[in-house]
Amino acid sequence: MERVFIVTEYDGTDYVGYQYQDNGPSVQGELQNALTQVYKEEIKVTGCSRTDAGVHARGHVSHFDAPFHIDADRIPYAVNAFLPENIAVKSAYYVSEEKSARFDTKGKRYCYRLYTGRTRSPLLSRYAYYVAGNLDLAKMQSAAEYFAGEHDFASFCASGGSQITTIRRIHEVLVARSEQNPNIIEITVSGEAFLYNMVRIIAGTLLDVGQGRILPEAIPTIINSCDRRRAGRTLPPSGLTLEEVFY
Amino acid sequence: MERVFIVTEYDGTDYVGYQYQDNGPSVQGELQNALTQVYKEEIKVTGCSRTDAGVHARGHVSHFDAPFHIDADRIPYAVNAFLPENIAVKSAYYVSEEKSARFDTKGKRYCYRLYTGRTRSPLLSRYAYYVAGNLDLAKMQSAAEYFAGEHDFASFCASGGSQITTIRRIHEVLVARSEQNPNIIEITVSGEAFLYNMVRIIAGTLLDVGQGRILPEAIPTIINSCDRRRAGRTLPPSGLTLEEVFY
Repeated sequence: MERVFIVTEYDGTDYVGYQYQDNGPSVQGELQNALTQVYKEEIKVTGCSRTDAGVHARGHVSHFDAPFHIDADRIPYAVNAFLPENIAVKSAYYVSEEKSARFDTKGKRYCYRLYTGRTRSPLLSRYAYYVAGNLDLAKMQSAAEYFAGEHDFASFCASGGSQITTIRRIHEVLVARSEQNPNIIEITVSGEAFLYNMVRIIAGTLLDVGQGRILPEAIPTIINSCDRRRAGRTLPPSGLTLEEVFY
Repeated sequence: MERVFIVTEYDGTDYVGYQYQDNGPSVQGELQNALTQVYKEEIKVTGCSRTDAGVHARGHVSHFDAPFHIDADRIPYAVNAFLPENIAVKSAYYVSEEKSARFDTKGKRYCYRLYTGRTRSPLLSRYAYYVAGNLDLAKMQSAAEYFAGEHDFASFCASGGSQITTIRRIHEVLVARSEQNPNIIEITVSGEAFLYNMVRIIAGTLLDVGQGRILPEAIPTIINSCDRRRAGRTLPPSGLTLEEVFY
């Protein structure tokens, strides 16, 4: 047995989420199915984290134990042949057997995309949330700075999470126009670990700032209140992409 | 009655094409349905051209006759409220009543996108056709130059078309890396009018050039042969987008 990390890109629109569930197709289920066909025996896959239904990933990481050796470079091609078009393994590498994609993460980077054109864009709507009208980018940027550091993020956590503590360390929240499309605003959130729906609530709060409903200077008060009702709404999953996982 | 031109963007993946058909949802059908709800009476829509099942558009143009006046700026918002997420009217303007979106086109610009990353990309696969390995961009560019001008394009026409002549005027075929993503190669084809599947066959032929199966200098011979079997294959519809229509 050799342990393998695989980096996976997927369009989450048609999935119940990363994690295997009874009520519909999951990314984990598809990965396990493809790997089982490659290795001709049942393979279990452990993901770095769940992503919710409809959330995308460009760099999700999972691990599994390979019953025989395939060159790391060739693993993506072997597995992709058995995956649906909306999931692909981008790269694979062998790690020591005690390494876990789930427990050894040092951090993750997410991006929430807002599209701000005059009318909504069907060719962008799968991956960016449409907001009518302009946003005050400078205000969003100054609000974003308050998130960095270790805080109790209870105000930015959906109920239903089972975590012991709501304290988390955020490395950085950045707000910038996409280099690829100036009508897309990218909210990039990097941190050690995240609460349930945390990035989507941070994005919703920054959207409120951009639209003038929340002042940038109010962010510390919202954080300190530990009251979910003080923060903005949870934005839809389609705008969110897990970009990178750090080990 | 006032005649209105509407510019429409759509994701064609889930449609049988632009034109109304009995066997599934069409863009024209959705537009007619939305306009009928806005104007409270049955509205017929005439498109600049059909696009095939799975082909996208960023700037498709249609016309209809409005039974009462709505400010042109407000038409997109009124109609979009009744359209599914994968179709949107981007802009609208009034024209004189003899103007036709179908018969008065001066030309169209299409873009066929190839994605050439190391592995396929689920987040790009809806709008770009995946090609494994590198392409010889310089050769594709020199091959592209032979298409400009008035030619008999019978070699680049799928059977089943009902046109009287296969002579068409192409303004320009350009091959370039996307500014947004250097792994995407954009084949931009502008011309007066097109034969059935013509852009997808030109793209398939240029792909053969990029992969070394056809020499750039062979393009004039392929055109002159008027033999469909000499050109490359028809690439899938998903990579194709109707970008702009000229009047």
